[in-house]
Amino acid sequence: MIRETFTDYIHKLQNQICEGLVSVGGGKLFEEDRWERPGGGGGITRIIRADDVFEKGGVNTSVVHGKLPETMQKRLGVSHEDFFACGISLVIHPVNPHVPTVHANFRFFELYDKNGEVADRWFGGGADLTPYYYCQEDVVHFHKTLKAAADPFGADLYPEYKKACDHYFFNAHRDENRGVGGVFFDYLKADESRDIQFWLDFVCAMGDSFLFAYLPIVERRKNDPYGEEELQWQGIRRGRYVEFNLIHDRGTLFGLKTNGRIESILMSLPATARWEYDHHPEPNSPEAELLEALKHRDWINNPL
Amino acid sequence: MIRETFTDYIHKLQNQICEGLVSVGGGKLFEEDRWERPGGGGGITRIIRADDVFEKGGVNTSVVHGKLPETMQKRLGVSHEDFFACGISLVIHPVNPHVPTVHANFRFFELYDKNGEVADRWFGGGADLTPYYYCQEDVVHFHKTLKAAADPFGADLYPEYKKACDHYFFNAHRDENRGVGGVFFDYLKADESRDIQFWLDFVCAMGDSFLFAYLPIVERRKNDPYGEEELQWQGIRRGRYVEFNLIHDRGTLFGLKTNGRIESILMSLPATARWEYDHHPEPNSPEAELLEALKHRDWINNPL
Repeated sequence: MIRETFTDYIHKLQNQICEGLVSVGGGKLFEEDRWERPGGGGGITRIIRADDVFEKGGVNTSVVHGKLPETMQKRLGVSHEDFFACGISLVIHPVNPHVPTVHANFRFFELYDKNGEVADRWFGGGADLTPYYYCQEDVVHFHKTLKAAADPFGADLYPEYKKACDHYFFNAHRDENRGVGGVFFDYLKADESRDIQFWLDFVCAMGDSFLFAYLPIVERRKNDPYGEEELQWQGIRRGRYVEFNLIHDRGTLFGLKTNGRIESILMSLPATARWEYDHHPEPNSPEAELLEALKHRDWINNPL
Repeated sequence: MIRETFTDYIHKLQNQICEGLVSVGGGKLFEEDRWERPGGGGGITRIIRADDVFEKGGVNTSVVHGKLPETMQKRLGVSHEDFFACGISLVIHPVNPHVPTVHANFRFFELYDKNGEVADRWFGGGADLTPYYYCQEDVVHFHKTLKAAADPFGADLYPEYKKACDHYFFNAHRDENRGVGGVFFDYLKADESRDIQFWLDFVCAMGDSFLFAYLPIVERRKNDPYGEEELQWQGIRRGRYVEFNLIHDRGTLFGLKTNGRIESILMSLPATARWEYDHHPEPNSPEAELLEALKHRDWINNPL
């Protein structure tokens, strides 16, 4: 039941998010690619490109099942062979450097014993924001929206998952956060106080909050003026995004090493990225302000 | 003696290569950054950017010594603590999509026992070409030049190191070679038939051949006409270059994970790169021809 309910949910959410993005975007529709996984299941990749508002992005769902590859058994530390996994994953890279890039995913994983009974299952996911220019209003709004969605499930959740997000989306080789964070959670399992239905409800609430967290920012910033200088900076920051995804992101690397569908995995990369040798923004510039914001942490009580 | 001789050699080669590149380039000189390594030694980073001919590139030397970090001991499978390493490393990304990107490096590594005696030492390196458009004349010239430099040291060397190069510069997640190869070698050590002086001479001969292998290609192609379409394709191929360096290149990953000097390591990345969802060139186009060339292997006896 959980599995069917969440599968329905991610497809509904995929439609909602695409519609929401189209409504603030330049009106261009997502292109759809349906693919099948040889081992079982498949996915729906929806791509937007060269829209007036969104330069490149994807909102993808996948529902896969079958025998767990040995590498995956090792990684999860389990000996179960049969699995089911479904999830929604999105990355949106806007045209305007004043509109942040956003990433979110919500997923469910289930393992079965030899009798086909559920042996283990959990939810994971999160949402995080990567601005090119710092705007307090936007960052605080993003975090407050996620917190408001999480709080009904326990006041401890947002702080814990926000911390996990800062920890995860970190370019260790640059000693720099990828963006201004959001929430990140994994292995949400039933325990004595919270059953799996609780986590289903929580993850759906987080999924439902996504458009409320992101769309107002796009609306507010999409017509802000910018020039060549802002685009150069956006390119450099997109280079850091590429670095994170290719060097550190566990999901990306795991997909690449287990023959995942490359084009669906790498849809997360921006249309363009730049690398300049030893680039440092001018002191007190808006670009330098962003770097300060990336270090800052408490967006609810003490924003920059 | 070997160590001093090779250290002198790489600095001389760095000067020669920079002068050679400037002579066919737009006349812009390399900018120099000298840096010191806290643990011992340092390097000379020379960067070229926004030249008429070369969009971005670096020709770097480093001469470092000290205590081997534990990660490095593990990787090399040794228990020696004291090391010396020196090398030259270069990557050049030209402006014109008809001029290939080139990479080369030549390096020496030495380990010492508790009495400070040499316990182990070896050379490594190679050179490889990454064209955006296929030109038989250029690729054959590049390989023939490397082969001519290697052949006096043994007819088996070029074929072996060429094969190693194809094997190494491979984007496994794309099932695609990064470029058209060249030579790649590592752990060249003294044995019964060849002493360390032999390998020193070999590596210097390969280093000396670099400008002869690459400069004529730049000269021939640097004024070839191109437009927006060629630049887009160049961007997409540069995306693949970024993918290789960040996902697969052992040197890059090792540098990033051991607090190497980030800017010197990532100078190998192009100024710009592109990612388009599920991009495939038109059948029979020059872009499709390149993809065919990437599959092809025997450039001496049976070029495409």
